[in-house]
Amino acid sequence: MEIVNNKEAILLRELRNNTARWVKGEGPLNHIVISTRIRLARNLKNIPFPFKASDRQREQVLMKIESLLKDSKLLNNFKLININNLEERDIQFLVEKRLISLALAHLNYSSRALIYGPDEVMSLLVNEEDHFRLQSLLPGYQLKKVWEIINCYDREMMNKIDYAFNEKEGFLTCCPTNLGTGLRASVMLHLPALIIMNKLSDLIAPITKKGFAIRGFYGEGSSFQGNLFQVSNQTTLGFTEGEILENLEIETKKLIEEEEKTREELILNHRTLMEDQIMRAYGILTNARIISTSEAFNLLSKVRFGIELGMLTKIGYDTINRLMLIIQPGFIQLLKNQEMKKEERDLFRAGLIQELLPYKAG
Amino acid sequence: MEIVNNKEAILLRELRNNTARWVKGEGPLNHIVISTRIRLARNLKNIPFPFKASDRQREQVLMKIESLLKDSKLLNNFKLININNLEERDIQFLVEKRLISLALAHLNYSSRALIYGPDEVMSLLVNEEDHFRLQSLLPGYQLKKVWEIINCYDREMMNKIDYAFNEKEGFLTCCPTNLGTGLRASVMLHLPALIIMNKLSDLIAPITKKGFAIRGFYGEGSSFQGNLFQVSNQTTLGFTEGEILENLEIETKKLIEEEEKTREELILNHRTLMEDQIMRAYGILTNARIISTSEAFNLLSKVRFGIELGMLTKIGYDTINRLMLIIQPGFIQLLKNQEMKKEERDLFRAGLIQELLPYKAG
Repeated sequence: MEIVNNKEAILLRELRNNTARWVKGEGPLNHIVISTRIRLARNLKNIPFPFKASDRQREQVLMKIESLLKDSKLLNNFKLININNLEERDIQFLVEKRLISLALAHLNYSSRALIYGPDEVMSLLVNEEDHFRLQSLLPGYQLKKVWEIINCYDREMMNKIDYAFNEKEGFLTCCPTNLGTGLRASVMLHLPALIIMNKLSDLIAPITKKGFAIRGFYGEGSSFQGNLFQVSNQTTLGFTEGEILENLEIETKKLIEEEEKTREELILNHRTLMEDQIMRAYGILTNARIISTSEAFNLLSKVRFGIELGMLTKIGYDTINRLMLIIQPGFIQLLKNQEMKKEERDLFRAGLIQELLPYKAG
Repeated sequence: MEIVNNKEAILLRELRNNTARWVKGEGPLNHIVISTRIRLARNLKNIPFPFKASDRQREQVLMKIESLLKDSKLLNNFKLININNLEERDIQFLVEKRLISLALAHLNYSSRALIYGPDEVMSLLVNEEDHFRLQSLLPGYQLKKVWEIINCYDREMMNKIDYAFNEKEGFLTCCPTNLGTGLRASVMLHLPALIIMNKLSDLIAPITKKGFAIRGFYGEGSSFQGNLFQVSNQTTLGFTEGEILENLEIETKKLIEEEEKTREELILNHRTLMEDQIMRAYGILTNARIISTSEAFNLLSKVRFGIELGMLTKIGYDTINRLMLIIQPGFIQLLKNQEMKKEERDLFRAGLIQELLPYKAG
């Protein structure tokens, strides 16, 4: 029996066992789109940005939002974790869960916090680069829905606290690239066919020229793995929120169409070869005794591809999403409740995968 | 339903379905030794060696042995296949079955034949390099037993036909390297540990200096695959049969000891890594859709290693031996009863493996 006796440890354990909404994987175009995410950068009037603020001022920011959690019906059932109380590996776990940014993990500010709602659909970072970073995250392609949700929470906060805002520059943010709307929307795509046929780099060039970025699974500063790519807007000023989302939709839909077309070509011309690759990945995942994170990611990408192509029917996107989370170093150490070396994790990871994947694929 | 309407086709189908004694894999030291084999080169007095003989003379050789089959109680239930009646892929099948030599397959002499007894323990090639090549083959390490068997058949023949023989040179043979005893004995070893630890080449050098050869699965002219190595004597003159077998035993036992020692080291220091490699091989074999002969051989070698180390207990050496046979091009085409391209065979091979290997290893 696990004995858990502090607030953060209890919440971490809850999060470890909880399946976030996006992980369930049910959403439009979920054969290509893993998830849709929007984040808003917001700051309080009259308090310097976190990097310039004193410990006392950052504490004020945290206290402000804590009192709002109590006052607001909308935010009433949200939970708060003080990041500064956590060990390194637990912070890593929250990054892996897509609840906090790499920036929040690495900045050494006092009074950093994560606040999150039911099913981890809405979350809020305190004292990251900005005072507040709101995030909304749903499975599949749901830009409009995600926007409605985050907008609702943003308005609630705007009613209760004074945001730093002016008519000319919009919302004021620490980094000038976030000025204006403070909005970044991103869509996470699984693009194995474009990678296999070596088409992605040609498609990405014009998209980045138009002011969009293509990033890895954990956004800014993360590497590409598992054929997963996040497309997001870079410009936040000079467009309305609606225009930003529309433009992102146009570019994302192009990639989705190309991926679909390329999958059809692959199935038409190389069906058995694809099946072979998918089944070999499955065979390794269900039999290996030692497996690294990046190998697991790449093999899981192939298995996901098998589901997307209708070749594997006994497992769902939820299993793959859950596996992609729990095989990561922070998550694994939280599961074992101890610090583990790479060799120990690689061994434990293989066992975890075999617990979740049915042994026989077909 | 297959319709089979000539003598050779009927015998080939029988051979296809029959499990040779050596394939059953039950014999001393069978955790390292696949099989033991002895062959004797013999010629008739007063008829030139096959390469110098006329068609008529080669036919006489064949008729001589055919009449002996009828007269001898010992050879009475042996069967005869005329190699010249066979298609290329069926000849390949007999090579794969270890019943005929690469030489018999490639020499274009008339009146070539294969004669074989129950369980394929004893066989006899007619009009290969020599008039007769007797072969005896058993599973595991059984040099003495194999010698007893082949000696018994050799004496029976010697009683009924005139061998080319003189006191000074012993049995006369086409190639001078076979003069004297005309005996070649070989032991097939599975040496994965020595390969993994890169120890084999150092061990082989002194053995070859002493007049022994190390060859691949099909002996002379075959390549190394699946960590399988045949050790055989090169010298046949100047030693008695007993001395040849004793010397081979000494060298073979050294290799067996080294392999055992190295396996112990591997298990002690790298048990999980070994398990990982073995289970990955198992996972690929039971899931791939396309698989080449040489990949299959190497993966089956790993699975055999798993059995040898006691890690895999649900399958036996007989399954691995049978698989090593039926995955080969000639065997596959005989099973499908048609000519097949490499791509078709690779597909069919994957299916065959999955029919014979239990899906779950443990």
